Formats: sequence, C-alpha cells, structure tokens
Amino acid sequence: MSTHAGASTRFSSSVYADRLSRAAAAARDAGLDALLITPGPDLQYLLGSNAQSFERLTCLVIPADGEPASVVIPRLELAALKDSAADELGLEIRDWVDGVDPYEIVAQGLPRPARVAVTDAMPALHLIPVAAGVGALPVLATDVLRELRMIKDTEEIEALRRAGQAIDRVHARMGEILRAGRTEADVAADITSAILAEGHTEAAFVIVGSGPHGADPHHEVSDRVIEQGDIVVIDIGGPVEPGYNSDSTRTYSMGEPSPDVAAKYAVLEEAQRAAVDLIAPGVTAEAIDAAARSVLAAQGLADAFVHRTGHGIGLSVHEEPYIVAGNSVPVREGMAFSVEPGIYFRGEWGARIEDIVVVTADGCEPVNVRPHGLTVLG
Amino acid sequence: MSTHAGASTRFSSSVYADRLSRAAAAARDAGLDALLITPGPDLQYLLGSNAQSFERLTCLVIPADGEPASVVIPRLELAALKDSAADELGLEIRDWVDGVDPYEIVAQGLPRPARVAVTDAMPALHLIPVAAGVGALPVLATDVLRELRMIKDTEEIEALRRAGQAIDRVHARMGEILRAGRTEADVAADITSAILAEGHTEAAFVIVGSGPHGADPHHEVSDRVIEQGDIVVIDIGGPVEPGYNSDSTRTYSMGEPSPDVAAKYAVLEEAQRAAVDLIAPGVTAEAIDAAARSVLAAQGLADAFVHRTGHGIGLSVHEEPYIVAGNSVPVREGMAFSVEPGIYFRGEWGARIEDIVVVTADGCEPVNVRPHGLTVLG
Repeated sequence: MSTHAGASTRFSSSVYADRLSRAAAAARDAGLDALLITPGPDLQYLLGSNAQSFERLTCLVIPADGEPASVVIPRLELAALKDSAADELGLEIRDWVDGVDPYEIVAQGLPRPARVAVTDAMPALHLIPVAAGVGALPVLATDVLRELRMIKDTEEIEALRRAGQAIDRVHARMGEILRAGRTEADVAADITSAILAEGHTEAAFVIVGSGPHGADPHHEVSDRVIEQGDIVVIDIGGPVEPGYNSDSTRTYSMGEPSPDVAAKYAVLEEAQRAAVDLIAPGVTAEAIDAAARSVLAAQGLADAFVHRTGHGIGLSVHEEPYIVAGNSVPVREGMAFSVEPGIYFRGEWGARIEDIVVVTADGCEPVNVRPHGLTVLG
Repeated sequence: MSTHAGASTRFSSSVYADRLSRAAAAARDAGLDALLITPGPDLQYLLGSNAQSFERLTCLVIPADGEPASVVIPRLELAALKDSAADELGLEIRDWVDGVDPYEIVAQGLPRPARVAVTDAMPALHLIPVAAGVGALPVLATDVLRELRMIKDTEEIEALRRAGQAIDRVHARMGEILRAGRTEADVAADITSAILAEGHTEAAFVIVGSGPHGADPHHEVSDRVIEQGDIVVIDIGGPVEPGYNSDSTRTYSMGEPSPDVAAKYAVLEEAQRAAVDLIAPGVTAEAIDAAARSVLAAQGLADAFVHRTGHGIGLSVHEEPYIVAGNSVPVREGMAFSVEPGIYFRGEWGARIEDIVVVTADGCEPVNVRPHGLTVLG
C-alpha cells in the first residue's frame, strides 16, 4: 500500500465545471480531439483532485467536442476521487480492474489516430501506452491550459494570500530559530516544523544558505555551522489547502553587517522595489526582469545577479509566466509570480529578496509583507 | 527556488560503475541505442542521485555501445549531482544554460532516428521533446532495467533490513500512539513523527483504518474517532537512506476481539505464514499468491481477500515482481517483496498482515519481525 494523505478541501464544484468547459473549448480551438490529464497540478486545477500517480492509470478525459468529461480509474483507487468535484459534476467514472487495458478505455470514443494533448506531468509509464492506444504521439497540454492556469480567479488569489500570510508567519519566527552556533540542517528542521505549524500541508523546500553557501542560489542545506557575522539566505515555502504554494525569501545578518554588505544590500532592495513598482497589466515579463537588473547594473552589480527575476506560482511552485529576458508576454490582471532578484559573491556571501505578487487592474498586490531590510539577528 | 533536500548517502562508486555497465549491456542486448534516465528511482539506482525533476531537463544518457555515460544538466542545478557517483566515475557532464536546447544535446552522438528507452518516471514535459530530438517514440526502459533492479545486491538487502527494523520500531510504539478516543488523523500525525524519528527520511504513507474504515484496503486516514472495540489496520512506511523503503502492516484490537474476529484473524495469520513458507527460488509469484488465497478459501474467506498478495519493493514502494495471479515469474535469490494478505468485511472491519521478505538461497528472510498476532491495546 502506498498512498499519500492529500488535502481534503477544494473550491466549490461550479469553479471546476467552468474550468472544464473552458479547457474543452481551448482544446477545440487548438484543433485537438481531447485532453488527457493524469494526477498532478493540472488534475488539481481541473477537478480539485489530489489523486497520486501510481502504476495503474488514472486519467481525466476531456473531449474537445463538448461531450462530458470522464475519469478512467482503477476500481481499487476509486476512493481517491471522493474529495474531488467528479461526483458533484456527475462525470462518468470508467473504473477498471486488473486484466483490463485502461489505455483502450481512454481511446474509446476518440477517432484513430486521435490528436490528444497530455498534462506535462504524465509519466512515460503511461504516456507511451497512451500513444499506442490513440495511435499517435500526443502533444503537451501546456499550450492549451496555460491561458487558464496563468490567470488566477478570486478563489485562487485568496488561497495565494493565505499561503503568503502563512510563510510570512514563519519568517516572523526566525529570531527564535536562526542563531549562530546552529547548523544549517538544524535550522532547516525547525523551519520545516514551523512551515507545517503555520498551516502548510507540506514543507516543499527549505533553503538555508549561510555565509559562502548563500552565494549559491541553488544551495539547499548542509551541516555547516552558522557563524557570527554570516549573511544567511532563507528561501522557503510549500502548499496550503487546496494546493496553492507560498515561496518567500528573506536575508538575515548574524550581527551588524559590514558597510560594504549593507551598501550592496541596499541596492538589491532598490532593485526588487523597482521591479515591483513597474508591474501593471501590459508590462512585459522581460521589462520587469530588466527593471531589477538595470538597478543592479547601474551600481556595478550586473554580474552578481545570475538568475531570472521570477516565476509564476499557483498549484505548481514554478509555472508560467517566467519573468526572464526574452519573454515578451505582457502580464495581465490575475497573474501571480515571484519577484526575487539576488546578488551572489562566490566564496563570500549572497542575498535575495523574494515576494509573490498578484497583478491587479492598475499595479500589483504583494502577498508577502515582511520587511525587506537585512534583518539583524543575535 | 524549489528544491527538496535529499538524502546525502549512497553506496560506493564501484556499485554504480557495475550497474551502469550492466545497464548498457542490457540495452545492447535489447537492440537499443541508448537509455535516457531522468530523475526518479532509476536515476537513484544507476547513479546514486536524488536529483529532482524540474522544468529544466536533467538526463543521464547511457549509450548501448559501451561509450561512457554522460549527464545532461542545467548549469544552475549542477550542485544536485554533488552527492551522486557522477564525479567519482568521471562521467562527462554536459551542462547547459537557458537558451540552449537540451534535447538536441541528448540526441548528439546518437543515430537518427535513435532507438532509445526512457525511465518510466520521465514526465511528458521532457518525453515529448526527447521524442522529437531523437526522431522516434521511445520505449520504456523498464524491460531493460527490470532484471537489474529486481535482484537486490548485498548493499540493497542491508538497506532493506535497516528499513524493516526502523518501521518495526514504529509498530513497537503503537501502544503509546493508538488509543480509543483519538481520531485516525491524530494517530497518523504521531505515527508520521515516529517514522521520521526512527530513521526514515520521509513518511511516504500512513494508513490508519479503524473499524469499518479497515474494510477499505485503500483507506488512508480520516477524522473518525477510534472507538473501544475497533479493529485497526496500520499500514506504514517510507524510505531510509539511500532511498530504500519500508512497508509493514499490523492490525490492532482496541480491547479484546470477539470470538468471530479472533477466529477469522487466525486464518489470516495462517494464510500469511503459508505464503512465506512456500517462498524459495523457483517458486512462481502466482503460486505464492495462491498459497495465501487457498488457506483463506478453505475457511470460506476467499471473497474477503480482494487484492494481490504482494509487490516488489526497493527504491520504489511498488515495483516488480508483483505477487499476483497470472504472474508466472519464478522468484529468485535477492528479490524483495511484500507478503500482505488481508480480509475485508464491508461496513464492519478489516485486517491485514504485511512483512517484506528477501528471497534467500533456500527460502526467504523476513525483514520485519514484529509479532503477527492481533495486538490488543487500550
């Protein structure tokens, strides 16, 4: 037996009815016959289901012609649907038992070959027999679902606010947790407990980058003992019910920072603010990235900022839109993404400031409201 | 930022050198050009890497012609390899930066179209562009890797023993945790803490099926209050470093069981023992399943046993061999799987006994040694 206990809440069924009908319409517009969605963020989005992917196929089938959606699922795993909207929406449940070919069930009612798009989370274990079943290599459903998932509705924005408040409460407790003399791993363990205690269903990631480790934006944790004088990057988050993620970074100083660190950090703070101040419907993702980058460049810190400015967030921690050079997508009301410039000095120290913002009619609303300054801890 | 802290230990590099060379030989025998392995259990098996799958491609490429394996990985995520055997084995690291097409890098050096097999965990996000890159739909690597992964070596068996001992210690603490008056969810939370405290890196699954919930083999947890007189199924497990899983079920009685429950449970105990007693090299998986089933059938309980007898276990909680009717694979020394018959009475109660066993030269060794009887608590 191997099943994760999932979150038990979801939005009202009408939210999912609307999403399913919009997804079908988008599939039709894209010239597809159907969308095939196995467990993962797309299934959470479309059905409010936290079902997991196992060796037996579970798949939501959304015909593009407007016929009702159905769920193909092993009879033994039917209980995984009980928290989803499938029942209330009256979806047809095509359950199957060992010995039956579930990929044939998926292909029933579709032309052959069928033009189908699959969720990007579908594992090869299922995708390869699905391709055989429908007689053609599927395409990714990302292009069809991007438009729906990128623009958050009222319920999603409220969930992102709750996630932001929850992770802000964890940062507010850093004075109890983060102390010189402790290892990064010990600090991370306490942060994990705090993330759960403050209302997340999981601690999806905990980065504690102290001293020179802070100079690696992808450092996680280590047994390094945090020292007086260290600058420490804390980048943390996880999902709150029904699955929307928090993600916030603050940087801490173990004792008063040197004038050099303080001066560079002030530029980073200005860079993060410049990007946020620019955000409004119609502004491109690449312009937001450039806003942060140009502030740093003006002070000789261009080379210290080695990653993109941000990423979309929702049911996935990383999703579209990506706030990066070359992405000319204009942001729109309801998009949610991180704004997280950082500066990194190899072998020495690093710093990053990250808030999640939601684009509003005339600007943006940060869901994280902790102070941006370098917080000095004992 | 979104990265899980992974386990930091692995076996010695020679273990992985051997596995890589045997995987390449198996791919050659299967008429393939290469194996493509993205993060997941196969990558843990072949490289000792706990890297995670993100939107940017990380992929181990194993040419079938005996050329050295290489790793395609985003430059920003290079640190994810540092705990793996890649460095010590001197694998070529083909790192890439945004703007480069990593699927072209994978295809370099392969014929076009190439016959490649992919790990069953590869998500569609990567598999569809991989198919375009190599010019053909890949097949699953499962057939090639099954032989390697099914037969556990000395190090793997030792890891499974440690996992078994760790979960046995959790069951040994059930007297403190499982009491009438508590909810299944409260009990599950304490079990989760105990699973971590006893040496697992994660609580992969926690099933607390009390009273009528025990009659559903796929029940997880609920807010049901456990009552005096309940029979409670506790099915729990998770990985220990370097990634090998525990999985053990015991059934508890809140107070003395009724004579009817005690009598039926005694048959279940005999069924589980009959299956374990039969296990030896050469005995088929289906014969082991039948051994448990026939004991139950002889006492009129055939219909109460609604699932297969067991599943292989290792880096995945569920893997081959499956101990199920129709699987005529003979078991062999070094295979590890669960033996877990159960009896289920809808609306009333259920029971299951599950040990992991490793096949030896002349029988099998259970890695779980807690008593099989119905433990009376509270």
